[in-house]
Amino acid sequence: RMELDNNERRRKFIEFPYVSSSHKKLMVDLVSMVETRLDSQLLPCTLPPDVQYYQNQSDTSHASLHIRSGHPSSPIDFILGSWIHCQLPTGGALNITSLSTYLKSSTDSPNFFMDIIRSSPTSLVLILDIPPRRDLALYPDYLKKYYEDTNLEAQRQVLEKVPEFKPYFSPSLYIRAFVSPTVITARIESDSVERMEEIIQDHVGVVAKQVLETWLDTCAVVENGDEVDENEREYLQKRDLLVRSKTIEIDLASSLPRLFGPETADRIITTIQKYSSASSS
Amino acid sequence: RMELDNNERRRKFIEFPYVSSSHKKLMVDLVSMVETRLDSQLLPCTLPPDVQYYQNQSDTSHASLHIRSGHPSSPIDFILGSWIHCQLPTGGALNITSLSTYLKSSTDSPNFFMDIIRSSPTSLVLILDIPPRRDLALYPDYLKKYYEDTNLEAQRQVLEKVPEFKPYFSPSLYIRAFVSPTVITARIESDSVERMEEIIQDHVGVVAKQVLETWLDTCAVVENGDEVDENEREYLQKRDLLVRSKTIEIDLASSLPRLFGPETADRIITTIQKYSSASSS
Repeated sequence: RMELDNNERRRKFIEFPYVSSSHKKLMVDLVSMVETRLDSQLLPCTLPPDVQYYQNQSDTSHASLHIRSGHPSSPIDFILGSWIHCQLPTGGALNITSLSTYLKSSTDSPNFFMDIIRSSPTSLVLILDIPPRRDLALYPDYLKKYYEDTNLEAQRQVLEKVPEFKPYFSPSLYIRAFVSPTVITARIESDSVERMEEIIQDHVGVVAKQVLETWLDTCAVVENGDEVDENEREYLQKRDLLVRSKTIEIDLASSLPRLFGPETADRIITTIQKYSSASSS
Repeated sequence: RMELDNNERRRKFIEFPYVSSSHKKLMVDLVSMVETRLDSQLLPCTLPPDVQYYQNQSDTSHASLHIRSGHPSSPIDFILGSWIHCQLPTGGALNITSLSTYLKSSTDSPNFFMDIIRSSPTSLVLILDIPPRRDLALYPDYLKKYYEDTNLEAQRQVLEKVPEFKPYFSPSLYIRAFVSPTVITARIESDSVERMEEIIQDHVGVVAKQVLETWLDTCAVVENGDEVDENEREYLQKRDLLVRSKTIEIDLASSLPRLFGPETADRIITTIQKYSSASSS
């Protein structure tokens, strides 16, 4: 089994080496959109090499993690990208790629969240959203500002019109509860690998970039008057911390030990928890 | 045009005179389930006759409203049933039947909410839920108690398996935001009137009764230790009032004036607002 040196481990994240070319291009485009636009606000990734890239003992599961914190003066707390690749006993492979952003409690703007789950080259599950950081039933102005006025519903409808589109319901009710009313949750099954590549390029990719663009334009910038009152930050911090810890628990704590063994899983989860629980304002 | 006497107006609600026999039977069954189980806790309906039953000047729109408040010692604030029937310019008719329940802020249990919208004898839109009264992202124990442990997801899946089932997305993002992760929002189009009658009886009806049964067993009863702390009641009252006023605005304030004229619409909306804004604890 070939060992990677530290530089190779660093490069692994942006290579997305196990996914199809459309899927890779989409992830690279999204990560560059975020890193280009927020460049001056982001610190370099300082994860240890064995967290930036890791694998299991039998070499059947590989994964990469990329985390960059925001500057102390930035509203960005951190951005998190990752991919996981696992050979399946059936001969196929499971590939998951994710990109999410986390804001500090100095602003109450929504975060960005995207998961793409591929259990075969002709299937794709997408969860794409700017999840709210307030109870929308109690804050209709927040709903209007970030969801109605941004017209994210139009993006959801674009994807709904793809003939292969089916709605996807996460088995986790918590995941369903923390997303927005314009969340895109899709299960797409295509007849051929070529058609799936086309769907990713022409539909999933276009919509994902538009939602990320909306997040960058509307949420990642804190304007005068957008700052959260000192006494509301406590509420936001409490809610943020709970959402972060619940989503880590649901996304990773159940699957990583199975895929990478308890020791590696512990290393990765502890690292993500360290960023997630910093709760900077 | 025939005028109704007061007794006839009172009876009109439970007659559901304009909907199909399956639809009528379902509504009568649901209303009796609630009134039988909660009978000792409910005061009689004291709405004025011209609110219990009303129509427009040209006699093309008819509607009925039924509200019963809970006893001062009951956790029930009020229950609200209604139907609306409107002849359409196309020759068909629009029929909407609703049943919802509202708890006091002495308990934080979910309410019950059901709307059935028929724009033709072969089409049906259903919104069926026990909408939460807390921010679920912040209260995972509440999510577990009322949504995971009650297994409401199984009911959603029962309806999803009906071949004519399609997911329905409310045009109002606020309606989408205040429902639970196990909300049933369905648009069903059948080939024939007979098939729709069968779907209502065997699927929509069975599921609606099961969800109402869950609400009656789990939410309508306040057990020792379920009481809400004095200092949390203020939060609940604020949230309840906002949700009630927003849903009235979305459901009625836009459509009633058009269907019944401004004077009647004002009389009905003012009455509902009186109950909704009482905010008893």
